[in-house]
Amino acid sequence: MLSNAKGVYIIAQTPFKENDDIDLESVDTLTDFYFSHGASGLTVLGVSGESNKLTFGESVQVANRFIRRAQGKPVIVGVSNPSIAQLDELTKRVMDDGASGVMIAPPNGLRTDQDILNYFEAVFKRIGDVPIVLQDFPFSTGVWMSVPVIAQLIERHPQIQVIKEEDIPSITKITRLRDLPGRRVAILTGNNAMFLPLELGRGIDGPMAGFSHPEMLSSVYNLYTAGKTDEAHKLYNCYLPLLSYENQSQWGVAVRKEVMRRRGALKHAGMRSPSPALDARAHAEIDMLLAHQQQALAALGN
Amino acid sequence: MLSNAKGVYIIAQTPFKENDDIDLESVDTLTDFYFSHGASGLTVLGVSGESNKLTFGESVQVANRFIRRAQGKPVIVGVSNPSIAQLDELTKRVMDDGASGVMIAPPNGLRTDQDILNYFEAVFKRIGDVPIVLQDFPFSTGVWMSVPVIAQLIERHPQIQVIKEEDIPSITKITRLRDLPGRRVAILTGNNAMFLPLELGRGIDGPMAGFSHPEMLSSVYNLYTAGKTDEAHKLYNCYLPLLSYENQSQWGVAVRKEVMRRRGALKHAGMRSPSPALDARAHAEIDMLLAHQQQALAALGN
Amino acid sequence: MLSNAKGVYIIAQTPFKENDDIDLESVDTLTDFYFSHGASGLTVLGVSGESNKLTFGESVQVANRFIRRAQGKPVIVGVSNPSIAQLDELTKRVMDDGASGVMIAPPNGLRTDQDILNYFEAVFKRIGDVPIVLQDFPFSTGVWMSVPVIAQLIERHPQIQVIKEEDIPSITKITRLRDLPGRRVAILTGNNAMFLPLELGRGIDGPMAGFSHPEMLSSVYNLYTAGKTDEAHKLYNCYLPLLSYENQSQWGVAVRKEVMRRRGALKHAGMRSPSPALDARAHAEIDMLLAHQQQALAALGN
Amino acid sequence: MLSNAKGVYIIAQTPFKENDDIDLESVDTLTDFYFSHGASGLTVLGVSGESNKLTFGESVQVANRFIRRAQGKPVIVGVSNPSIAQLDELTKRVMDDGASGVMIAPPNGLRTDQDILNYFEAVFKRIGDVPIVLQDFPFSTGVWMSVPVIAQLIERHPQIQVIKEEDIPSITKITRLRDLPGRRVAILTGNNAMFLPLELGRGIDGPMAGFSHPEMLSSVYNLYTAGKTDEAHKLYNCYLPLLSYENQSQWGVAVRKEVMRRRGALKHAGMRSPSPALDARAHAEIDMLLAHQQQALAALGN
Repeated sequence: MLSNAKGVYIIAQTPFKENDDIDLESVDTLTDFYFSHGASGLTVLGVSGESNKLTFGESVQVANRFIRRAQGKPVIVGVSNPSIAQLDELTKRVMDDGASGVMIAPPNGLRTDQDILNYFEAVFKRIGDVPIVLQDFPFSTGVWMSVPVIAQLIERHPQIQVIKEEDIPSITKITRLRDLPGRRVAILTGNNAMFLPLELGRGIDGPMAGFSHPEMLSSVYNLYTAGKTDEAHKLYNCYLPLLSYENQSQWGVAVRKEVMRRRGALKHAGMRSPSPALDARAHAEIDMLLAHQQQALAALGN
Repeated sequence: MLSNAKGVYIIAQTPFKENDDIDLESVDTLTDFYFSHGASGLTVLGVSGESNKLTFGESVQVANRFIRRAQGKPVIVGVSNPSIAQLDELTKRVMDDGASGVMIAPPNGLRTDQDILNYFEAVFKRIGDVPIVLQDFPFSTGVWMSVPVIAQLIERHPQIQVIKEEDIPSITKITRLRDLPGRRVAILTGNNAMFLPLELGRGIDGPMAGFSHPEMLSSVYNLYTAGKTDEAHKLYNCYLPLLSYENQSQWGVAVRKEVMRRRGALKHAGMRSPSPALDARAHAEIDMLLAHQQQALAALGN
Repeated sequence: MLSNAKGVYIIAQTPFKENDDIDLESVDTLTDFYFSHGASGLTVLGVSGESNKLTFGESVQVANRFIRRAQGKPVIVGVSNPSIAQLDELTKRVMDDGASGVMIAPPNGLRTDQDILNYFEAVFKRIGDVPIVLQDFPFSTGVWMSVPVIAQLIERHPQIQVIKEEDIPSITKITRLRDLPGRRVAILTGNNAMFLPLELGRGIDGPMAGFSHPEMLSSVYNLYTAGKTDEAHKLYNCYLPLLSYENQSQWGVAVRKEVMRRRGALKHAGMRSPSPALDARAHAEIDMLLAHQQQALAALGN
Repeated sequence: MLSNAKGVYIIAQTPFKENDDIDLESVDTLTDFYFSHGASGLTVLGVSGESNKLTFGESVQVANRFIRRAQGKPVIVGVSNPSIAQLDELTKRVMDDGASGVMIAPPNGLRTDQDILNYFEAVFKRIGDVPIVLQDFPFSTGVWMSVPVIAQLIERHPQIQVIKEEDIPSITKITRLRDLPGRRVAILTGNNAMFLPLELGRGIDGPMAGFSHPEMLSSVYNLYTAGKTDEAHKLYNCYLPLLSYENQSQWGVAVRKEVMRRRGALKHAGMRSPSPALDARAHAEIDMLLAHQQQALAALGN
């Protein structure tokens, strides 16, 4: 049951070759990298997974490869799409292929509370009984879901098992979601983990975020849930400068892929074009941030 | 050559059955209806053709059926997509199937002139030498293309053969586009034909709009180009109340499909859900508008 | 009581001199023009009244001049402002000067139903017991108010006496608003009167719109409420081409002011800069539309 | 000359009393606080200074009080306003009162490069020869200014002496701005200083940002410009967790004011209503972040 999800559901990158083709072999190394650094599960084909640059066939292929390599560990697939028919088609394919559930964000253009309720009514009528992560990411989608609306969606649709909460501020909204009566759902958080230890303090079940150092996400989670909150914060703070550097929109994704390439997680760092490219200055900044990070970790005894 | 396009390139509806399946037989009757009422060509899978509710496979199927039924008459296919890979895939399929060209609007999220130039650079690098209708519809796309930017696009990309101009006001922009030096492109206009005779006065090559009475579009075009501008205006004015009633966003599309159903152009008027539905009051308003239209036409001697 | 408002509350232009100063003498002639062409009241300092180009002092001055010249006839003043403090300050000044009420639209940036309720809670706490026109114009404000939210606002705030309804489609929303149980408010409609006779058929109390020919608004209203609905439609249709030409965003306002200048309602047609200007082609189009309008009215026996 | 601006131009809060009135005495203590913690100048009436909640009279009063208390040190006043007339009126008042210049961001609704150029043409025609900070903050204004457009503005308008750069990523844009040929302008950066040391590495002249600990901004600036880049980064990193906590939109402003209240900079922490309020959990989080910050600084030997 996804509603019992706990730990790190890492937002996975999609690896490409230099010629912009999908690099399926790097999907394998990437999957291994994530799990060997403490991930509990993967969330693939999210926004920073460049899902909006793929064809339908490529989306199926990428999701399938991640699922197979994960060997039974949970894989959630982003299927958000302005077309409910396409959302449904991808959902069916990836659920058949063994996904644990799908993640859905409301499409741009929904305005009122009623619009949002109607949209998900239509979605669930079409896709049926599939476990869902409801993504609340208003700065990306342009759709604002208030806590009462999310509560109604949870009540009406038992398929919703996880809320991915990445409104700003996330912390106050987490508290209000956690205080809701009724059926319990898991709450995982995004925003590139920029508020992770505070969010853990507000009662979330883990991060659903991307970062070039997944071991930070899992260690902070483990420390925090073991009651070592101070250690969790201190460890987190060592990584915060790089985390923040990766938190620069699409450009930050380019950085993240480059750092992961250096760590051997994938072969080629480039995003599918058109996309930002890193110059010598950016590489030098990465060098410096990594060096500082290492020093900070060393000072902490890591 | 699309750059010589002239006349009515009607924006085609997509017909559905009561159960929301595509109604391919109605694609045939619809095609016949458009051409028998004076269309020179079709533009299929546009916004009001509910293209954003279809799967990839359905899009190919619908476009293919229109193309085959058009028996060599020009069919342009809307392929706009946030994913350039998907845009490319659909473009290749429909061009293989015999489309005359594809229509592309810039995706939401492009902001500066440079963003727009970069986007189309990437598109044309990928799709190659395919005849293009560039759609300038800022109120729908959220992307504003100034005349200098459009001029640069025309200069850089010989593939652009038609501008579909539907900024507001369209008339002043048409004049500025028409006055551009350099390679001539066709200018066709949308905005549900709300400014058609004035746009003809500004030098366009015809409408690329949807309306339940395509004979109005073709007659106004024919009168105007025959120098009978007063007659063109007078005829147009008879239809303007219904045209304006159909010019109410998605709700207006529901009206248009209902009027076309009454005229035998398609079997079922419904839009694919979720979508607006017409109640008894709306039906009564349609009755009245059609009756007034008939009276106005009769008074004109039609 | 504004909740009994009936008839034409015309959206008034603000007249400027060639040097961009306010033209107070033209405020007088304009006021006389509106009332002599059948207006029941005025709505001043709206969006098309260029309110967002004035200083606070100018706003007070313009409103005051309209109020004095109206000699006791109702004048509503637009006071929408991102700053509640400024909204409050202008409200107090114009109510002291004799305004009948103020019009408020929610500011851009309100997203959820709760945001909207909170905003008006704060507004009414600050401004107190002032008669209000609540403006529902989502395409201009970017704030979507559903019928349930409007119903809650009406229930909570007895100050709300009029809804200015200009969502698209307006007609279905009018029916839903009219069917609400509870306290009755007046419903007046905008959208440049593009749907006026149909809106009258849905039960509104009159237009709150701008047009260079206010006699059309009042005559259509009078015919419709006298049960002569066919005559109302026919008269309306004579003006529809020009109405639609004026319905082109800020450029349409420039047209309206020019037509009103020709009719002697104000001295100088220009909008305060920066603003669109009309060229010779536009003037010729106006000539032609006015000529056609006169012919259509003559054919109707007017 | 503002074009020689260097150091910390802190974004100043506006202090209110519990009853929402302006707290002018706290303006004095706040001014002293900023300057005693290393500010070179102040920027008042910015977005996080709650400028959009004030009346015109209050804006003048607040700016005047800051200017007088600054005793000749530079004070820049935010005057952005959808109405150029209001922008002009406030500009004249605060320049008369001794401001060093005014900050202007383009208003929402400008779309193309040409729109932006036209807008500033009209602004400078009206306000004349006043030193200007051009604010490039697209995520707040909704207006995207490319580097070529900014270059044209600098070339055309010698009044522009500073660019406040807070696009994302800021660092790459800073490099492109710095590499522009032609007249040199100062570049100061915002984004709540989330990228300050990296921005210093890209050649900026200092931060124009708000933070509850201005001594961090000044120390990082001083270390960096003294060539102690490693020390600058290390000091910065001690503050980053709190900085990031304050970087949560309007809610973050409430946090910042609370921390500053604790430090004695102002009497009452509340923002003018309607505004977010901090609960016990938030206060506890602030306690913890401040404690961790102190520990980190101690470990660094501060």
